Amino acid sequence: MSSSNKSKLFLHNHPVSSYAQKVRIALREKQLDFDFATPPALGSGAANPSLSSQNPRLEVPTLVDGDFAIFDSTIILQYLEDAYPEHPLLPTDAKEKVRARHVEEICDTTYEAINWAYGEVNVFGRADGEEKERLQAEMKRQTIEIQTWLETQLGDRPYFNGETFGYGDVCVAPIYNRSVVKAPANSKLDLWYQRIKGQESVKTTFGEFEEGLKAFKAMGGAFAKGRGMRREYRDYRLEFMVKSGGLGVVRRGIEDGTVRFGWPEGGPVREKGSL
Amino acid sequence: MSSSNKSKLFLHNHPVSSYAQKVRIALREKQLDFDFATPPALGSGAANPSLSSQNPRLEVPTLVDGDFAIFDSTIILQYLEDAYPEHPLLPTDAKEKVRARHVEEICDTTYEAINWAYGEVNVFGRADGEEKERLQAEMKRQTIEIQTWLETQLGDRPYFNGETFGYGDVCVAPIYNRSVVKAPANSKLDLWYQRIKGQESVKTTFGEFEEGLKAFKAMGGAFAKGRGMRREYRDYRLEFMVKSGGLGVVRRGIEDGTVRFGWPEGGPVREKGSL
Repeated sequence: MSSSNKSKLFLHNHPVSSYAQKVRIALREKQLDFDFATPPALGSGAANPSLSSQNPRLEVPTLVDGDFAIFDSTIILQYLEDAYPEHPLLPTDAKEKVRARHVEEICDTTYEAINWAYGEVNVFGRADGEEKERLQAEMKRQTIEIQTWLETQLGDRPYFNGETFGYGDVCVAPIYNRSVVKAPANSKLDLWYQRIKGQESVKTTFGEFEEGLKAFKAMGGAFAKGRGMRREYRDYRLEFMVKSGGLGVVRRGIEDGTVRFGWPEGGPVREKGSL
Repeated sequence: MSSSNKSKLFLHNHPVSSYAQKVRIALREKQLDFDFATPPALGSGAANPSLSSQNPRLEVPTLVDGDFAIFDSTIILQYLEDAYPEHPLLPTDAKEKVRARHVEEICDTTYEAINWAYGEVNVFGRADGEEKERLQAEMKRQTIEIQTWLETQLGDRPYFNGETFGYGDVCVAPIYNRSVVKAPANSKLDLWYQRIKGQESVKTTFGEFEEGLKAFKAMGGAFAKGRGMRREYRDYRLEFMVKSGGLGVVRRGIEDGTVRFGWPEGGPVREKGSL
């Protein structure tokens, strides 16, 4: 990394988080120096003073520039474009900017939710038998539907950003890389994937992801066995589970206390009348 | 509205939608000519060819500029800033831009979800007795928590955008206006609200909201009675219900077919094993 930036940047990070990967790729593309660390007790829902004073959601990525904190990966990327305009990532044309942002929006919401659900079902073992088969079939079907839409956005261009690697590619890269269902070999999306894997910023970030994934998988039963870890079933992730036949997964997670929700925290969700 | 814009803009609209209100206020602040209409059968989940070719989510607001469609209210507002830079809404300083975007993000997600839940419970009658009381108590408690955070963002400035009305205010206005729980009289948030209600763009948009609300309320039992209307329980809205003791509302809505989810649509959520 170069030392051309104006001030030291610090990233509250997680190696596996697709949103944090997005920010790390962007920081590297912009050749900005930054430090990063995973907050202690992240993912448990435990209090975390260093992060909570900066982000009511207690989520990573949170970027700190001097004493100024920015949360939400989309807002962070826009801040980097605004505050560090060298090596711009966004296209210059207003309509091309929209294309890149549409792709970001769909990847950050519905696509990420499916990747996350794969971990819940296949790594953390939250479903078995028919329920597991149903959820896996839905993951596959919905992934293909989103990939088909992504291919229409890519069109005949080499990159989601157009002729060169940029914002759109930064956003799709970590999400597609984590997707268990991949587009057919030599499809437009597959050729794009082969292309971006050679990008230095992407290679470094995917390497960190692979290392982090080993630790993540080793956690295996930590959630199912109620060892105090509680996974955040927020917004689109919760929606995927509920709409894809996994309401039972949610109900059981609430009952055994291995599921939590986002800020502001809810009240007594375990009351009998509600289950 | 002036005729200073480059091309005719069309907005797929709904008078009551907070997201569509956000876009209408922005278009008016930027003095751009635009036409708008509510898509037929919006909210039923029925096919809607004119909209579906432009937005996989079939949601309003969708803005069409010539033959170019933009979905997601945040992406639309950013497009307006990029393509029509006259009368800018965003602050010029990169950190002030972040402040406005943080406020937008929280209002568009967790705050909007609570306003929406009020309609589900109090207008569409999806809960009774203890369940209703529990949900109402959570709406109030969580609204106050978000308003407290909003006040820290406002600080001692007259507007969320700083010294003048702008982006941050455009985003908070429709959400706070629809909030049943309001900040105490003469609190910072209340004084801000009194201030922005005088803004012409806001006055016009709130007037349309009031008119639309009458029709909305007249629909009353349309959902509960299964007349083919299905409400979209998506992302943060679904999360509010589930984390606030309304999992029963979701379960019953799935069972009686008065609830739907976002694109890509889920599979057979009504399977017994999942409920």
